[in-house]
Amino acid sequence: MTNSVDSSRIRGVLVPVVTPFDRELRPDPKRFVRQCRWLLDQDVGLAAFGTNSEANSMALAEKIALLDALVEAGLPTGRMMPGTGCCALTESVELTRHAVRLGCAGVLMLPPFYYKGISDEGLFRSYSEIIQRVGDTRLRIYLYHIPPVSQVPISLPLIERLLKAYPGAIAGVKDSSGNWDNTRAMLEQFQPHGFDVFAGSEAFLLATLRGGGAGCISATANVNPGPIARLARTWRQPDADDQQRALCALRDIFQKFPMIPALKAAVAEYAGDPDWAWVRPPLVELDDVQRGALLSALRAAGFAMPGLRSSPVHP
Amino acid sequence: MTNSVDSSRIRGVLVPVVTPFDRELRPDPKRFVRQCRWLLDQDVGLAAFGTNSEANSMALAEKIALLDALVEAGLPTGRMMPGTGCCALTESVELTRHAVRLGCAGVLMLPPFYYKGISDEGLFRSYSEIIQRVGDTRLRIYLYHIPPVSQVPISLPLIERLLKAYPGAIAGVKDSSGNWDNTRAMLEQFQPHGFDVFAGSEAFLLATLRGGGAGCISATANVNPGPIARLARTWRQPDADDQQRALCALRDIFQKFPMIPALKAAVAEYAGDPDWAWVRPPLVELDDVQRGALLSALRAAGFAMPGLRSSPVHP
Repeated sequence: MTNSVDSSRIRGVLVPVVTPFDRELRPDPKRFVRQCRWLLDQDVGLAAFGTNSEANSMALAEKIALLDALVEAGLPTGRMMPGTGCCALTESVELTRHAVRLGCAGVLMLPPFYYKGISDEGLFRSYSEIIQRVGDTRLRIYLYHIPPVSQVPISLPLIERLLKAYPGAIAGVKDSSGNWDNTRAMLEQFQPHGFDVFAGSEAFLLATLRGGGAGCISATANVNPGPIARLARTWRQPDADDQQRALCALRDIFQKFPMIPALKAAVAEYAGDPDWAWVRPPLVELDDVQRGALLSALRAAGFAMPGLRSSPVHP
Repeated sequence: MTNSVDSSRIRGVLVPVVTPFDRELRPDPKRFVRQCRWLLDQDVGLAAFGTNSEANSMALAEKIALLDALVEAGLPTGRMMPGTGCCALTESVELTRHAVRLGCAGVLMLPPFYYKGISDEGLFRSYSEIIQRVGDTRLRIYLYHIPPVSQVPISLPLIERLLKAYPGAIAGVKDSSGNWDNTRAMLEQFQPHGFDVFAGSEAFLLATLRGGGAGCISATANVNPGPIARLARTWRQPDADDQQRALCALRDIFQKFPMIPALKAAVAEYAGDPDWAWVRPPLVELDDVQRGALLSALRAAGFAMPGLRSSPVHP
């Protein structure tokens, strides 16, 4: 279970980019590219097609088209870790293979999440089949542990088994359990073997970095990317705890609302583009009261998204 | 919320047909057609792409190819209610539209099941978008309520709202909650308005029919179709309770094992075709001990699948 530490691995802060839809609820590649470019400028990597991207409300073909749009626009694939775990084995293989061929630094992979009460043996076979079918030494899988949503946990014994069987392909984890004891156990057991642990939100960023982890992948990096990335760069400085507190205070504002609609309402407001507020069913956009409450709380906190409004569509 | 009772509606017993895979885990249309023909001969309709079909382990394109194979083989679409509810709005629309154009009697539709804690408003919008995008008066949706697996329940108020808004398209429900009080409430509140209630297993078949319901859609109809269909035809006869007890006794044998692998192990054994045992990850086939225990229990119960072994591949 040794995994040589690879300094080229993607680290730091990544963002599950919210997906722009038009009024027909079609993904909008033009606004997507623009948003991703702005996020990269804030020094966060792109974990497109995450939970907060409404990835699982999009068809396979829609995800492939959006990823292609980023690459065609010249955005750096070395800063990309798209979500590629689908319910269907064959869809996970197709999307993962596509991401690897494009040169993405890694893929963030949900377990198949329809069937419940799944055994570790079944999940091992699932990841194993995908790795073998993709059959590419460039593949770097980051396991996506998010039991509150997927309802299919990735246990520590499963990680140990996968890491032993595929030390090259199994590169790390995003722990969205919200359970620090679990993140700490991953840091202690697996990070020393080159298995990169990302916290599931910036609330655990400082603790994760102090524990030797790789960074965080966080919903609120859609709206607060610069300050979160700054903590990842400067966490050894004396003001790190103050930075962490400030990040949590802003995060707390968003957590009072349904997260994805709230993120999109904020982007819509600060980009000056109301169409950003669209979500696909089964999600529902914020109502006027929620939206008003969110925006006044943000104003009261002195919140800004610097450079977003002036960010050019075709730079 | 009135819905004229349509005597042409599909009723009785339907089966979420188990999906045959080959050794490369590819769906096998030839064995699928053969199995579906045998099931139709036993007087059960085809609810292909259900939970027990491993539908959510298959890609959209794989499901379309299997459905096309049934139609090309000349199987009657009036006896088909394929599952078409996917996580992604656009995939649900595409698969549903395809089924309707082929002339399927109905579609069994899961809610989008990745995001949890979804509001009734969000689920209403989801079904509503699909109905409007399919835009075909022949569409008959059977709502698929299976909270133990989907973790996204379809509430009684949601049904009421959908039925009021789309009295033509919202045709019924499969209640796999396992909660008879819920099935009874659906029978009392909605069946009189022409909303057809199917029990989620034959354990509730007699009670559902006595309550005015339409029938059942049951995993174990893969292995015990004839006797289950007989009860649906003869439930007013004096031996109905005895029939129900016998159905439950056989069902109890399968419920001691993981259901999908157990169904496939039985089909493999009684069809004399070991390849039927393959399941896609994250499921795992029965081990030898489980398989032995299942088959001896079935032998002890005098179980048979009449006509299956001799069922021709190309009749």
